[in-house]
Formats: sequence, structure tokens, C-alpha cells
Amino acid sequence: MDERVREHAEVLVDWSARVEAGDDVVVSVAEDAHELGVAVAAVLGERGANVTTLYGSDELSRAYLKGVEARVEGEAGEDGTGEGEIDGGDAAVDAADFDADPAVDRAIFEAADAYLRIGGGRNVTATADVERATRQAYAKARQGVREARMDTDWVSTVHPTRSLAQQAGMAYEEYQEFVYDAVLRDWEALADEMAKMKDILDDGGEVRIVTERDDAPDTDVRMSIAGRTAVNSAASVAYDSHNLPSGEVFTAPYDTAGEVFFDVPMTIDATRVRNVHLVFEDGEVVDFAAEAGEDALANVLNTDPGARRLGELGIGMNRGIDRFTDSILFDEKMGDTVHLAVGRAYDACLPEGESGNESAVHVDMITDVSADSRMEVDGEVVQRNGTFRWEGGFEA
Amino acid sequence: MDERVREHAEVLVDWSARVEAGDDVVVSVAEDAHELGVAVAAVLGERGANVTTLYGSDELSRAYLKGVEARVEGEAGEDGTGEGEIDGGDAAVDAADFDADPAVDRAIFEAADAYLRIGGGRNVTATADVERATRQAYAKARQGVREARMDTDWVSTVHPTRSLAQQAGMAYEEYQEFVYDAVLRDWEALADEMAKMKDILDDGGEVRIVTERDDAPDTDVRMSIAGRTAVNSAASVAYDSHNLPSGEVFTAPYDTAGEVFFDVPMTIDATRVRNVHLVFEDGEVVDFAAEAGEDALANVLNTDPGARRLGELGIGMNRGIDRFTDSILFDEKMGDTVHLAVGRAYDACLPEGESGNESAVHVDMITDVSADSRMEVDGEVVQRNGTFRWEGGFEA
Repeated sequence: MDERVREHAEVLVDWSARVEAGDDVVVSVAEDAHELGVAVAAVLGERGANVTTLYGSDELSRAYLKGVEARVEGEAGEDGTGEGEIDGGDAAVDAADFDADPAVDRAIFEAADAYLRIGGGRNVTATADVERATRQAYAKARQGVREARMDTDWVSTVHPTRSLAQQAGMAYEEYQEFVYDAVLRDWEALADEMAKMKDILDDGGEVRIVTERDDAPDTDVRMSIAGRTAVNSAASVAYDSHNLPSGEVFTAPYDTAGEVFFDVPMTIDATRVRNVHLVFEDGEVVDFAAEAGEDALANVLNTDPGARRLGELGIGMNRGIDRFTDSILFDEKMGDTVHLAVGRAYDACLPEGESGNESAVHVDMITDVSADSRMEVDGEVVQRNGTFRWEGGFEA
Repeated sequence: MDERVREHAEVLVDWSARVEAGDDVVVSVAEDAHELGVAVAAVLGERGANVTTLYGSDELSRAYLKGVEARVEGEAGEDGTGEGEIDGGDAAVDAADFDADPAVDRAIFEAADAYLRIGGGRNVTATADVERATRQAYAKARQGVREARMDTDWVSTVHPTRSLAQQAGMAYEEYQEFVYDAVLRDWEALADEMAKMKDILDDGGEVRIVTERDDAPDTDVRMSIAGRTAVNSAASVAYDSHNLPSGEVFTAPYDTAGEVFFDVPMTIDATRVRNVHLVFEDGEVVDFAAEAGEDALANVLNTDPGARRLGELGIGMNRGIDRFTDSILFDEKMGDTVHLAVGRAYDACLPEGESGNESAVHVDMITDVSADSRMEVDGEVVQRNGTFRWEGGFEA
């Protein structure tokens, strides 16, 4: 076995999930993530944990959901009501077509101490022909399962697969290097560095981000962060961080005003979206445009009122990630980037017992700040052209 | 998708497990059983069942158990007791090294209505380098999980894989044909035919099996079946049958006397065993021999007192199975064979509340009765040279 796979497993189990002897650990292994699954099982055995392995296959999920669609269409045809028909005769699946309390899945996450999700399937678009309504209904019916899962020490990572290499536009071996550069870091040292950014945000009242480039519209946006707590997302449940890799500091802004141009492409609901431009007034998106995928963007923004407000300001600080790969797990943590998410805010950023922006969606959009940019907190520049103020070469 | 895979899934879900809308179904998918897993998920979606998918990977199990071995060896090295050392310094794993109540696995099977195990890994000897003591300790620690699993409507089947084709000594396409011939049968018709055999055994007091061949030692063995109930194992939980394929009628004999020669090769604990000869007196094995693998056979017979008594007499009646493939799932159901198992008897064969032969093992051994043989029940021939008395060409 590639030694890096073993190291990835150790980081996941020890640094990220903090697994201890006697823990009940659920591992979900995607179709082509077998090798990392094997390495994780070995480490869990060494640590004295129990392991239960789920098969996280998108192709299997697709088959199940297509089966549900066939059943609902058949029932609609039988009773002849035609109720809820879409797409010229197909019956739409709604949440009532699923069991509201799937007993086994609920039991699994209620009994689990930790949940390790290892992505890495064979086709990132494996569920592309499942109706959007079906996917939404399934997610809605499984809200209770999702909440039980979120109550565990959960961590999400990926094993580098050919499918993900293709999504990234990279050769397989090149993509492996990319993933391990991002994952196999000195997390303790990065956590210490990110703590500096967290302290600045925790003490700050207003963030302003400015980019001025010849080849793209300017960004100049201000948002309030007073009273909010930043998360030092150091790829460990000990830091309220549930992604491996991570390497970002994020908080929950409000009262946003100004314009932002997001130059990093992304995929929303299987649609490629490029060069998004958002205009904020009084904390809300009042105008938007995208050079590609504007309909997908509009769908997001029209989901509910909270979808037009920001839920997150994130500062990417993982310099092991040196390029965009069309995967939010990596892209939003890339060093020298900033991202803003419309939609739901994380409770961890809010005063105890308070809720932040509420929405059914949370969609991150990223802008490159490596050049011709600055970020100010309360009027003081803390990052210019990607260099933080505690780093050599910083120009205030 | 190969239409036979879809048909296999339908037989498994509808005929074998009798899944109904609202059932919580757990599916375990082996490493190379993805395709059948996908087909089963589709059928479960159509039937309105919930599905939870486990990854049944032998390589992952091996990694976990090797991890446990490394931990126990490390601990033994640290405390310097050397207690329980085997193999020149290795510490033996015992059941206390595992959690006696793995909460997640227990919760899964307590919540599940049905459990569908789809075998078909990449290497039938994937766990060959795990110490026997480790495997036994793991099995012992998981007794509660096993019992919860047996309380579901469980069915075990396999997807034809290259690994299983190799085990069978067959080409891949040839092996696929073999599996589907065995699985895609008219089960209703076979159940009706097997009911005739069940009636004969239920009414009978003593079975005698005789083979007289030039090229092998004779078999002449008698056993009592009075008071015992035969199971019509028609590959469905509705028939107390948990294998797909099945196609055997079995009961729990006692007071065995005589000699048996088993001419069908088998694998016991990763050891090839051939041409077993057993001598019974007063219900117990008093002498044994094997041309190959005699040590493995001795290990079985010396497990506990019950391991020297019979737990099962089975009559293979699935004529879709026309050759031996070194897989007990198929071999023991082959038409024109009879098998005897030493060890544990199935409760289904015993009067309500009564226990039969008790043992930690249950090892089936098979003899070909297609020629030069007869089976008598209470002195009356019911099968001669493979032909049953209700079939054309039968000679009493």
C-alpha cells in the first residue's frame, strides 16, 4: 500500500476524528475508496475502536431513487388522479413517498460516536438523471437521520480516484499528489497560524474586501462581524471542523453591502457556474449575474429569503492546495482565496443559543485574492495580495 | 445491465426475503458485488422499502483484525508479561480484546426487518493471514450481533465474480451461467417437489444411505430421524430457508452408526480436504481419515463433544446445480447429492422448545449419489442412483 494512504488514514482517525479505544466508529466507503477504507480499518483496529462499514455508492443511491420514482409513477397511473404530474406525465416524488423515520439509519447514527465519510466514487454525476424533486424529497425525509449524523464526531474526506481526477482536469498520479499535499500537512502548525486570523475576526466589527483587476469587475464589499465567533477550521472535531482537508477560518457575517465578483468556477446542482457577480444592499442580494449557469444561481437565490443573505465569510489558508479542482472540499480552503456563502449560517459562529441566517441552502462562492486585493478589518489591512500581516513581505 | 442480474435481485427481494413496503432492509455488498447491489437497491425502491447498505469487504475485515493483532502484540510487549504468547512472541488475541457489545452493529440488526448478504469479493482467501485465534475471538465477541442478525429475515446469496469463478475452476462467463442456472429457477415448482421428500422424512424413523462403487470405499450408514421435522429449504424465509440458491431438504439426525465416504472435495478453514472417511458408533465419530487435509478435519472433530455427532442430514435437489464449485452455498444443494454435517443442529428441525446437537461448529460433507447408491427410509428405497421414487425411471 502507498504509504500516503496509510498516513491519510492516521490523520483522519487520530487528528480529525480523535478516535479513542472503545469508540463506535461508522465508516462510509465510496465505490472506489476501498484502499483508504482498508487503511482506516487497520488504524481503527490498532486504536481499539469498533468499526461498522457502510457502502457509500452513488450508483446504488441512484438505483434506489429511480426505483422510488418508478413506484410513484406506477401508483399515479393506477389511481388515475394524475396528481402532481410533471414532465408530461411523470408523477413527482414528495417526502411522503419516503419513510419519515428510517429505523436502521437512525439507529446507526444514534449509536455511533464518530462517522468517517470517505468519498471517491466512479462518476461525480452518477445521480444526474434523478429528478430534482426526488432528491429534495429524500433529503427532507431524512432530516432526522442527518441531524443524528451531525451529532456524531463526523469527518468528511475523499480518496483520490480517477473520477475526481477527471473532475479536476488532472492526470490520476498528478491528482494523487494534489490530494496528499492538501491532506498530509502539519495541522498543529496550521491551526496555530489560523488562530491569528481567528483572533482578528473575533475582535473585529467590520470586514471589507477589495479587488481591483484589469481583467475582471472590481469587488468592494463590507459586512459586519461584530459579536460573531470565528471557527479555526483545522480539520479536526476538536476545532469544530469536519472536513479533511480543511484549513480555513470562517465566521457568520451580516449587514452586507457592496459588490462581489467570484472568479472561481463552481458546480451548482450539476450545472457549471462561472463569473458570478452579486450586488448587496442592506444585507441582501439585490442584483446578480453569471456568465454561465445563471439559472442555477437564480434557483439558489430564490430558494427562500435567507438564500439572499450571507451565511459565511471564509478565508482559505491551506497553501497545500495550489489550484482549483471543482470540488468545494478543496477549493474553499485554498490559500490566498476568500469565499462567501449565501444561505445557512453555522451555529458555531453565533452567540450561545442564538440562530444566524436560516435557509435550506448553503452555497459557497470563491474569489482569488492572490493579487490586486486587500482585506481590511475595521479599516486596518490584514491581508494584501494573499500575504497576511504576520507574514514576511506584507505591505500594509 | 445484464437482465439476469435484475432477475436475481427480484428473486432475492420478492421470493427469498418477502420484502414488503415499509420494511427496513439492510443489504451487505461485497467488494465485487456492486452490480447486484445496484439491482437490489432498485427493486427495494420499487417495493417501498428502506435500504441501508453495508460494505461487506473481506479485505477491510482483514485489515481491522490485523490492526487488532498489532495492538495486542504491542500491549503484550509493553507490559512484558508475555502472557498467552504463540508463534515465537506474538500475543494471541482473545475475545476480551474486542468490545463484547458493539453498539452500532447490534442496533443495525435489532432495527432491521430483513438482511440481504450479497457475497462476491475479490479473493476468497483474503483473510488467510489472520490468526485462527483472532478470527475465533472476533466471532465469539460478536455472538450477540450474530443472534440479532439471525432474528431478521436474512438471506445469503452471491454475485458471480471472477474470484468465485477461479475458486470453481471455471471461466468467468461460464461461471455466470452456472450461478444463474442455480438461482433463476421455478422455486414454487421446486418447493412442491421438495415437499414430497419432506413428507417422507417427517413420517420416517430411520434413514439408511448406501453407496457401492468400484473406485471408492463403500458407504453404509444408518441414523434415526424419528420425532424430527425436515425443512423444505426453498430459498425463502417463508420456508425457513436463508440461502439463495437453495434446493435441499434437511433434518437433524441422531444415533448414527456405520461408515460414510465423502467423495466431494471441500475447504475447511482455508485447507483443501479430500475423500473424508468417517466411522460412527452410538451416534459419534469413532474413527476418521482424509486423503488430504486430515489435520483440518481433526481440528473440526476435536472442537467440542458435539462436533463428533451429526447436526444435519441434507438431500440436494437443485438440478440447476450440475457441478461442484468448492462453495458450500452451491455444492450442498446440487441434485443427486447427500450431505451430512457434524456439529450444530438447526432448531427448525426439532420439537418446539427442544435443543438438538450443540456445537460451535457446523461442517457439511457431501457425497455423490448419482450412481451405485440408494437411500432407504424405514427399509423402503426412496432414491436410487439419484432418481427419486416419484420420478420416471425409478427402480425400487
